[in-house]
Amino acid sequence: MDAALDASLVRPYVRAWLAEDVGRGDVTTTTVIPAEAYARARLEARESFTLAGLGVAALCFELAGDQPPEWDPKSSDGEEVRPGDVIARIEGNLRTILTAERTALNVLARLSGIASLTARYAAAVAGSRAKVVDTRKTTPGLRVLEKYAVRVGGGANHRFGLDDGILIKDNHIAAAGGVASAVRRARAGAHHGLRVEVEVEDLDGLAEALSAGADAVLLDNMSVDEVSAAVAANDGRALLEVSGGVSLDNVAGYAATGVDLVSVGALTHSARSVDVALEVDP
Amino acid sequence: MDAALDASLVRPYVRAWLAEDVGRGDVTTTTVIPAEAYARARLEARESFTLAGLGVAALCFELAGDQPPEWDPKSSDGEEVRPGDVIARIEGNLRTILTAERTALNVLARLSGIASLTARYAAAVAGSRAKVVDTRKTTPGLRVLEKYAVRVGGGANHRFGLDDGILIKDNHIAAAGGVASAVRRARAGAHHGLRVEVEVEDLDGLAEALSAGADAVLLDNMSVDEVSAAVAANDGRALLEVSGGVSLDNVAGYAATGVDLVSVGALTHSARSVDVALEVDP
Amino acid sequence: MDAALDASLVRPYVRAWLAEDVGRGDVTTTTVIPAEAYARARLEARESFTLAGLGVAALCFELAGDQPPEWDPKSSDGEEVRPGDVIARIEGNLRTILTAERTALNVLARLSGIASLTARYAAAVAGSRAKVVDTRKTTPGLRVLEKYAVRVGGGANHRFGLDDGILIKDNHIAAAGGVASAVRRARAGAHHGLRVEVEVEDLDGLAEALSAGADAVLLDNMSVDEVSAAVAANDGRALLEVSGGVSLDNVAGYAATGVDLVSVGALTHSARSVDVALEVDP
Amino acid sequence: MDAALDASLVRPYVRAWLAEDVGRGDVTTTTVIPAEAYARARLEARESFTLAGLGVAALCFELAGDQPPEWDPKSSDGEEVRPGDVIARIEGNLRTILTAERTALNVLARLSGIASLTARYAAAVAGSRAKVVDTRKTTPGLRVLEKYAVRVGGGANHRFGLDDGILIKDNHIAAAGGVASAVRRARAGAHHGLRVEVEVEDLDGLAEALSAGADAVLLDNMSVDEVSAAVAANDGRALLEVSGGVSLDNVAGYAATGVDLVSVGALTHSARSVDVALEVDP
Amino acid sequence: MDAALDASLVRPYVRAWLAEDVGRGDVTTTTVIPAEAYARARLEARESFTLAGLGVAALCFELAGDQPPEWDPKSSDGEEVRPGDVIARIEGNLRTILTAERTALNVLARLSGIASLTARYAAAVAGSRAKVVDTRKTTPGLRVLEKYAVRVGGGANHRFGLDDGILIKDNHIAAAGGVASAVRRARAGAHHGLRVEVEVEDLDGLAEALSAGADAVLLDNMSVDEVSAAVAANDGRALLEVSGGVSLDNVAGYAATGVDLVSVGALTHSARSVDVALEVDP
Amino acid sequence: MDAALDASLVRPYVRAWLAEDVGRGDVTTTTVIPAEAYARARLEARESFTLAGLGVAALCFELAGDQPPEWDPKSSDGEEVRPGDVIARIEGNLRTILTAERTALNVLARLSGIASLTARYAAAVAGSRAKVVDTRKTTPGLRVLEKYAVRVGGGANHRFGLDDGILIKDNHIAAAGGVASAVRRARAGAHHGLRVEVEVEDLDGLAEALSAGADAVLLDNMSVDEVSAAVAANDGRALLEVSGGVSLDNVAGYAATGVDLVSVGALTHSARSVDVALEVDP
Repeated sequence: MDAALDASLVRPYVRAWLAEDVGRGDVTTTTVIPAEAYARARLEARESFTLAGLGVAALCFELAGDQPPEWDPKSSDGEEVRPGDVIARIEGNLRTILTAERTALNVLARLSGIASLTARYAAAVAGSRAKVVDTRKTTPGLRVLEKYAVRVGGGANHRFGLDDGILIKDNHIAAAGGVASAVRRARAGAHHGLRVEVEVEDLDGLAEALSAGADAVLLDNMSVDEVSAAVAANDGRALLEVSGGVSLDNVAGYAATGVDLVSVGALTHSARSVDVALEVDP
Repeated sequence: MDAALDASLVRPYVRAWLAEDVGRGDVTTTTVIPAEAYARARLEARESFTLAGLGVAALCFELAGDQPPEWDPKSSDGEEVRPGDVIARIEGNLRTILTAERTALNVLARLSGIASLTARYAAAVAGSRAKVVDTRKTTPGLRVLEKYAVRVGGGANHRFGLDDGILIKDNHIAAAGGVASAVRRARAGAHHGLRVEVEVEDLDGLAEALSAGADAVLLDNMSVDEVSAAVAANDGRALLEVSGGVSLDNVAGYAATGVDLVSVGALTHSARSVDVALEVDP
Repeated sequence: MDAALDASLVRPYVRAWLAEDVGRGDVTTTTVIPAEAYARARLEARESFTLAGLGVAALCFELAGDQPPEWDPKSSDGEEVRPGDVIARIEGNLRTILTAERTALNVLARLSGIASLTARYAAAVAGSRAKVVDTRKTTPGLRVLEKYAVRVGGGANHRFGLDDGILIKDNHIAAAGGVASAVRRARAGAHHGLRVEVEVEDLDGLAEALSAGADAVLLDNMSVDEVSAAVAANDGRALLEVSGGVSLDNVAGYAATGVDLVSVGALTHSARSVDVALEVDP
Repeated sequence: MDAALDASLVRPYVRAWLAEDVGRGDVTTTTVIPAEAYARARLEARESFTLAGLGVAALCFELAGDQPPEWDPKSSDGEEVRPGDVIARIEGNLRTILTAERTALNVLARLSGIASLTARYAAAVAGSRAKVVDTRKTTPGLRVLEKYAVRVGGGANHRFGLDDGILIKDNHIAAAGGVASAVRRARAGAHHGLRVEVEVEDLDGLAEALSAGADAVLLDNMSVDEVSAAVAANDGRALLEVSGGVSLDNVAGYAATGVDLVSVGALTHSARSVDVALEVDP
Repeated sequence: MDAALDASLVRPYVRAWLAEDVGRGDVTTTTVIPAEAYARARLEARESFTLAGLGVAALCFELAGDQPPEWDPKSSDGEEVRPGDVIARIEGNLRTILTAERTALNVLARLSGIASLTARYAAAVAGSRAKVVDTRKTTPGLRVLEKYAVRVGGGANHRFGLDDGILIKDNHIAAAGGVASAVRRARAGAHHGLRVEVEVEDLDGLAEALSAGADAVLLDNMSVDEVSAAVAANDGRALLEVSGGVSLDNVAGYAATGVDLVSVGALTHSARSVDVALEVDP
Repeated sequence: MDAALDASLVRPYVRAWLAEDVGRGDVTTTTVIPAEAYARARLEARESFTLAGLGVAALCFELAGDQPPEWDPKSSDGEEVRPGDVIARIEGNLRTILTAERTALNVLARLSGIASLTARYAAAVAGSRAKVVDTRKTTPGLRVLEKYAVRVGGGANHRFGLDDGILIKDNHIAAAGGVASAVRRARAGAHHGLRVEVEVEDLDGLAEALSAGADAVLLDNMSVDEVSAAVAANDGRALLEVSGGVSLDNVAGYAATGVDLVSVGALTHSARSVDVALEVDP
């Protein structure tokens, strides 16, 4: 899936966020600011980052009231912005602009934070065959958006949920009585459009997975040397994914082993929101 | 409001999160694990942190299927846990346990991360009259829960949305033609149960706000020395809140000035998820 | 908050009301009236009243079908209308007009009834410092709209719910072990943007509330003389609100004592719907 | 349909009302009252009225939190209560009781008001063949409940919406080119389980309706004498309904003419909420 | 009700169906087809059938994304189409067209199947006084649409649900202690706009129903001869409906007896989807 | 995924279906049958079929009112029942039983119809390596349930929607400029847990797909001989699926070729509802 995110998909999110923040009405704005007040404003970067979520922010302003302001984007998702860069201009009813401000900034800062962190990981593996992929360690309720931000940052997505991908983990294997049995059951029970991926912890596990016919193998918490050995042992048969203990310091080493995928939970569970602000022209 | 969070309020969130992760069904679990498989499992800390969200995690297991497992908490929100500590024991249908696992861990890790960061700020201001308070820089859709985690960590809450508190900022002031006019309008238009708080950037602004009758004043981006001067100038008339540029390094200094509140956006926008895991007993 | 009511807030209400009335379809209209029938109609006052809810009525016609009629308002919320006055003209598909008619009239009649009753109370206190305010004794499900009608009629709003204002009543006081304890707990636990209001029944209670630092005091079921004494005893320290037993006959007397607020449950729980009708031009 | 109202139907209403009143939490109760506080309380009549909505009030307490109090009804819908009568006893968590109080009282007061007014009309027509029936002039969003209260008060219901009954009014007749054409179209287009009722303004209209085969005729705004003449002219052929200008003063006169139904909009659009209160035992 | 189906009623259905099929996104289309790809396509009949649901199909394309394609209908509901006939042309964003394709075809095929089967029954009774009517044996969740398709095919509707029509069946009669009692209770308890229909199994039942004043009688599982006798016995007093065991082979015979209605469950529970396809112009 | 269907997933469907049928209340039942009437009833087969949806039917009775009857299943999904077989016994409140009856029967009849047709196809391919699989030609809104019925009948599922499986069809190929390009794009853009399946129309297409690295190939509208040739040409490299023109008459022939999957749209789009009834014990 390319990075595009359909606005019709995002609108229900934005409506829920605005309801959360605005509640029964923005009491400060409606009491202090005249109904007809008009303003020009801009979204501005306060630090350097990879932009993600600009279209989502636009929807916050579009849906915050009956008089949506004009929206004039000056950048686009995936671009690198620097402190002081104007990301978008907004012109129209001041009440609407101020009521939507915090919701728009919150989502833009979070998604850009994820894209920015992903971009650093993606840069670190450049030149290798490995893709940086996300995990299911996303903020509850925001998975589709956070995985979009990963794509914007140059990463790839892992499965979106428990229903569109198979990943057999240690507890599944134990309950099934072994790797071979678990892989066989998944293959028999799941629809044929899904690959069977299985998590292993060492080379013996890999061997067992390969002989069981796994389509992909997740190498969990292995050292770079172990992963190199796994790549050699695999000999191109299954997709290989590295997971566990990956950081910006060691990701290039893992990528250089020849694995196909390096999954990084930190992309979504530990990204910091970037600093972005709305300024109203005087 | 004390830290308690009513389960009836949280269930709709949990249902939505489970729907996001489980979708049309957990294909790995339902194909690999027998319907009647039974297991004992435990939630376990992998690092030291302040626990928050244990009751929310419990609901994830309760609502993940028709056969909710038994839930036996071994800790409680607000406690400090250490690596290896068992936080809760879970016993019952293995499919249900594994299907709920990721959702439960995601929310527990995020809320505990916020509580843990808050606890560090709260410790830093201990002994002063200042409370550490949160902001509206929360994750879209999770505000009520994130503000709960702040309380668990020993912080206090600022307003929950745009409708249950008044905060007049620079753009409001500009549109109203000055601090006095803005305060007067808010006072006249808002219901009498809300205080009027106004943001100022220097001592002149404070003076103007006080003479306009503001109930509370937010001192934005001032140095510790400026804040000290503001406390003196205020002489107990309005509540004083410090905001902007506050970090763990300088929060004690701000608190020592005698202000009432120090608000910290980082509590919610930059907290890192803690490391917590679910282990199934062999 | 000024009287404005954002259409984006009201549309979900209107959709629910239309669903309630129209159900699976307006069987009379769709069987008797040709799909293309076109008509001019008018909303007309049948008695004198203060208009409220005209924009809400407009949305009923706008959302009743795929062919919304033209809407041409001839009055506006807050205006006094007389029998025979045309409030709005509506022109377009006759089926849509007739299907929306009852829903539009019901809400317009109810909101105008509230505004009209409020206007009588507001007129009675004119010249005093007191505002007439509403209560939470509203029709379940319609609070935001009914409080809007109070504003239209010249009244002010009390808190909108249990979360945007503090009002400590007798049962709270009893459970807390006294006024002082209750006020202290509320002040410590609630966010700083909320004032603490406490209900008392006599001058002793007022004294206790004042010394406990209450921001506002509700004088419950006191006579005009007692309220006068309370105003003197308060000496400008707390906001004073009169409540209980207020009627059109005695409201002026209460207002003349110098209290700040007189709350009247009857504004919303006992207003009568006004008489307004839709007429189709022959 | 008998007067019973299924709880499964009412719960979604109650949840929405509680959300409206409680919002993000009852800040007074949760800050002032200990989580474990326990109390006995009672619902008590403050005036004489016909009780309606007791089961609905019970649901307000049941759904207000995780610790629903015990509910012990001391009366039942349809009973006449007097000032001081205990309607129900409630025992349990005090926070829950106080949080639910206003919502429960609001709906109980409103539904009892409707039942009480209906009971007065029903008493006035006792001994005649006429039933008192309601109209669609109900509070938007509460029709099913308000029509239940009418039944409790001894009235009968008219159609519940535009889809479960046919009523051809003047505008329909005009658009159809006459009574005969309108009746014919409705008969041909509507499913056979619905009767065709048509509104007429005089005896000529009645004659035309009868010859067109109408099953029921609404006599709109006719005097008692005209209605008597209509009853004679009808000679038992169609159901006859009187509507328009009916009051407690004249309803007996209309009923004595021998009509089948007298519809009264005031039952729902002009009923006053009764006075009922919750008292906590000391 | 005429055959028209308001788009505002249908949109919520279409949104739910698209969510069911598209889920988190059409992965094939978004990965394979460029975002800006543009195409011309057509809906084409692959067999002969009575068209129903064309407007519903249009909504599937309209609501499938942010770039709805142009829709140019070449036929209309109720028309007979033949293999190869172009039903509509669609031109615009190719991703949107392909994402909506299956949902649009599924509903169009199903509704047209119902209309086509209904048309065969309607043709079979042409010339008689009997209408072919549907039942409540519809697909759960699709009743309003399936009953629309019946009207398109030339049939008439029976009641839409349990609330807009009365049909007393054998179990009701048994519980009420006989036909007379059951009819009397329904007449007393239901609002006067509903007719009372009662199901009987033989001529004795019919006689009892007629003397009890039933407005309509459903003759269940009777032979053509029995129905003829029932028509004679009824002598125009009640509406007569035949039900049970009706097929295309015998429907004409039943219709010829002079009954008013023949209800056929097969119209909705056993219709086969027609063959219709979407073709993209090369 | 095995055949199990979690009740927590199905309840929202059942609630919506009951709302569709019951609307504002079952007027016949509530007027004719006493509130306390008690009965024993049974679900009974009227023809031979493969049972599917018994648990779904149970939920219809469970959720139809405040007094759910006892449910005692006498068969289970997947069993073959014969005319007269008792499928379940139901005992309890008669109103509830009768109100839920039609909804329960409708879904049971439809799902059993699908399972029964699937069972015939599954029997026809028994002994071959081929599985019978469904398609996305399901009833809008019922896909999860209909695919469950296919599993019950011994079939397997294809993808559940556009997001959990990749199927590149002719229009995708044309827009991508060929099979190789389309496969490459899907592989690069989709997450690695999904296989890439591509539709071809002849052996040349198969060859192109195989050399492009497709994981699965759908052989569209080929004869049995062509499919045999395709199996030989494939030589075990990709999964092979036959689709188009498959009927009960020829499915065995296709299965005998050695293909992996035979997909049959008729399983869901053309299954006939089976005959099943509810009988109340006298």
